[in-house]
Order: sequence, then structure tokens, then C-alpha cells
Amino acid sequence: MITKNEIRRIRSLHNRKGRDEEQHFIAEGPKIAAELLSSGWPVEKVFALESWIRANPALMRIVNCPVDAINGNELGRISAHPTPNQVLVVAKTFPRHPEIEKPEGINLILDSISDPGNLGTIVRIADWFGVGQIFCSEDTVDIYNPKVIQSSMSSFLRVRVHYCSLLELLSKFRDEIPVYGATIGGQNLYETEKCPDLFLLIGNESRGISPGLKPLIHYNIKIPSYPHAGGQSGAESLNAAIATSVVLAEFRRESDQSSLGDKSSA
Amino acid sequence: MITKNEIRRIRSLHNRKGRDEEQHFIAEGPKIAAELLSSGWPVEKVFALESWIRANPALMRIVNCPVDAINGNELGRISAHPTPNQVLVVAKTFPRHPEIEKPEGINLILDSISDPGNLGTIVRIADWFGVGQIFCSEDTVDIYNPKVIQSSMSSFLRVRVHYCSLLELLSKFRDEIPVYGATIGGQNLYETEKCPDLFLLIGNESRGISPGLKPLIHYNIKIPSYPHAGGQSGAESLNAAIATSVVLAEFRRESDQSSLGDKSSA
Repeated sequence: MITKNEIRRIRSLHNRKGRDEEQHFIAEGPKIAAELLSSGWPVEKVFALESWIRANPALMRIVNCPVDAINGNELGRISAHPTPNQVLVVAKTFPRHPEIEKPEGINLILDSISDPGNLGTIVRIADWFGVGQIFCSEDTVDIYNPKVIQSSMSSFLRVRVHYCSLLELLSKFRDEIPVYGATIGGQNLYETEKCPDLFLLIGNESRGISPGLKPLIHYNIKIPSYPHAGGQSGAESLNAAIATSVVLAEFRRESDQSSLGDKSSA
Repeated sequence: MITKNEIRRIRSLHNRKGRDEEQHFIAEGPKIAAELLSSGWPVEKVFALESWIRANPALMRIVNCPVDAINGNELGRISAHPTPNQVLVVAKTFPRHPEIEKPEGINLILDSISDPGNLGTIVRIADWFGVGQIFCSEDTVDIYNPKVIQSSMSSFLRVRVHYCSLLELLSKFRDEIPVYGATIGGQNLYETEKCPDLFLLIGNESRGISPGLKPLIHYNIKIPSYPHAGGQSGAESLNAAIATSVVLAEFRRESDQSSLGDKSSA
């Protein structure tokens, strides 16, 4: 059973304005719900079909919030998805603008990423490559957008996503931490010096990196492309998430190799 | 002006059955239309807003098919997109089942990729890395699906996509051409021997590579993942398109390096 007020409030969480006001978001589906409830993330309430509740006794033992059994029709009224999937969790958002200390390791910076699927995929990629935090421009799509949560495949649980002025962030730290920008006209990724601590800046899907940020880049890097067998050149660009994955994979490979080198020379 | 029969026929091309019967597909939007019309691809007809026609005199000179001026309302009735974009081209499909000669270079094999956005993105990645042909299982989403065409960003013009029995294909050629399979439990991508001619097999988004194909793989490869700073492990898997991009980038990097090695030792 769910009240009209609850339906209204949960539907307000479908939008950024509602999430900002209520400081909560929704996550849907058995897989994400199970990971979220097991993760220790602060959760307010679970709405689920009776069948899902019965099928998850172990989760029911660890849940420390109310669990409401609702029917499929009610789930449809609060879900943000065209095909609601058994369970919807209302959880607490993290502050978007935390105090930022000097970042270490690989730090991802997203300049105006607008597609929710791209952001979710990038969060999943960051999670795979052990990148623990992402700094987004204020106009990047919201991490708590239901489509982002969905496409991140639970990786939002492990990767912190901050929103801030990228100009301020980079101006503050760029003397200590080099900035790599993925650009079409950059130098070959594989021939560029890599540093252990770094910022990797990825631009908007169609406009690329903002003109105001370009002067702050130390290394413009490009993923080499290859002509087809007949000599014809191919795609003009790669999708933002694809570029992120290839560059992160290479940063990790190189740092593995140099640490192997350290060991063998020791 | 567009007739009711034309509207009915074009709407039938929104679905695979219609495309198979009519052997035509639709491509929409100014960017894809311009590339398609300049590419020499066989085109049947262009439907466009008067404003788009006036803005593209150079294209109008090279087009060798009828161009119909229609209004926004008519475009909405034939478009497969929620927000129709100025122009829709009806073009000829290539045969799905060509005679297959012995493949050379890097050949991508897609086993049951179901998401149109993933297939389109993979075609774009193949195009970037100069991979000229992709073999898909019969149940892989159709290359001429409007969402695939859209997300391939014109790369479908340069990458041939064949549909066939992957079991037959691999059984026929695997003695001559090694098969690499992207799997969670494989060996480190970076420590695996690479061959100049190869098949790269990518599995379904959730089920991975079919059990029937697994015995045909010579090298099971895995993209290494990395724990977070606190030691916590991250994402369970990477999206199929992401995995494709990282593996193709590495195959290309390695072959570049070995050809550099050849040159320096010559």
C-alpha cells in the first residue's frame, strides 16, 4: 500500500529539481536494489512486489528501513521506467558540492556530458578501472537521474561524482597535477608521457572541451585511428564513453608496466 | 508532397520485416543524409523540408534520385524518431548474407548483440579502428534498424555488416585464423599473443558468448580491472561496446609496435 502523498513525492524524484529539494533519489530493479541494500548506503524506504520480498529473505534481514509491499499497478505509478521491475528503492543523495582536497591517482573530469546513458557508462568504466572520483561541470547531467543510475549498473555506489566549476578546480590544482585532455587534434595517446596523479578531461558529446578550459590542458591526447584496407578513412570521432575507456585502459596498462619496471630494476 | 502509399511503405521500413521485404531502409537527419548522398550508396528517394533543400545546393547537384519537398507534419509521419530532423533518405540495403571469402586483418564477430545503441556504437568503433567487416549472429539486432543507423553516426557506410551462423563461420576458418573471445574469466589482454589476422568475438550484453561458440575460441582474453584506492573491487563487467573498443585499441597498438620493430630491425 502506498499513499497518494508518497506517489507524488517519489514522482518528484524523477526530476533533478525534486531530488535537489528532497535530497533523495530512486533506484530500480532487483540487481541494483540488492547491491544498494547490501552496500550500507543510507536508504529511506523500499517499495516492492510481494513476490520480490518473499524471494529475498537474506536482504530482508539486513534492510534497516521500512519495506512496503505494493502491487504492479502501484509500482507503475512511481517507476521512472517504461517497464517497472519488481522493486524501487528511495535512497539518500550525497552532497553534490563537497570540500575538495588535493586529488590523487587518476581523476576523471567531465565537461558538459549531456546524455544520461553516457554518464552512467562512464561511471561504470571508472569503477572498472578503479577511478574513485569524477568531477563534473555544473551542466553535466545529474548522477541521480534514473537513466544514469540504471546505466551505471550499480557503479554509482563506488564512484563519487562531484559537481563543481571545472575552471576553478583545474586552476587550483593544475600546477601540481597535470591535465590530459582527450581531443581530436591531440598527440598520439601511446606516445604521451603519463604521470601517476592526473586529471583526464573529457568534453561534451558534440562540442568537445569548452574553449575556456582548453588553455588549462597540459597534454592534448588523441586515440589513433586507422584507415580501412582500401585506404579510406573512417569515423570522425569516438563517443565520449568509448574515448574514456580507451584512455583509462592505456593509463592503467602503462602504470602497470612502469611498476613492473620498478620491480625488475630493484 | 507525399502520397498515402509512400507513407505506408516508409513506415513499413521502421521494422525489420518491412526492410527485408522492400530491401530498403531509412536514414535521417542532415549529417547522415549528407554523408549518405555523397558516398555513392544507392539511394531511392529523399524527403526533406524545403529549407533543407535550399540550404544544400551542392548536395542537390550530386543527388541522382528524386528529392521531394515535404512539410514538417509529413516528415513526422514517416520519421522513426521522436524529433524528426529536416531530412529522411530511403536507401537500398546490402544483402545480409553475402558469400564469405577468407577474412583478413581484424574481423569483429558479434554474438547476439541486442541493443541497437550498442550495435551502432560498435560499428562506429570498428570504423575508427579500420575494421571493415563485422559478422553478426542471425539474432543480433538489424544493422538497418533506425536506432542503429543513428548511433553509428554514418559509420555503417564504411563497415560491412554480415549476418550468418557464427558456428559455421568459425568452424570453417578457425584452423587458419585464431579466434579471440572477450570473456570475464580470460587471460590478461596485454599478456596475450596477438596475430595479424584474427577474429574478435564479443558476446551478448548479459549472457556473454554462447556456450556453443566457446569451444571454438583459441584465446580467452580479459581487460584487467583495478580495485579502488581502499581496496574495494569495482564493476563486474564492461559494456559490450566498451570492451570492443579497449580490445581493438590494444590490437592496433600492438600491431603498430611490431611493425615499428620490423622496421627498426630491417
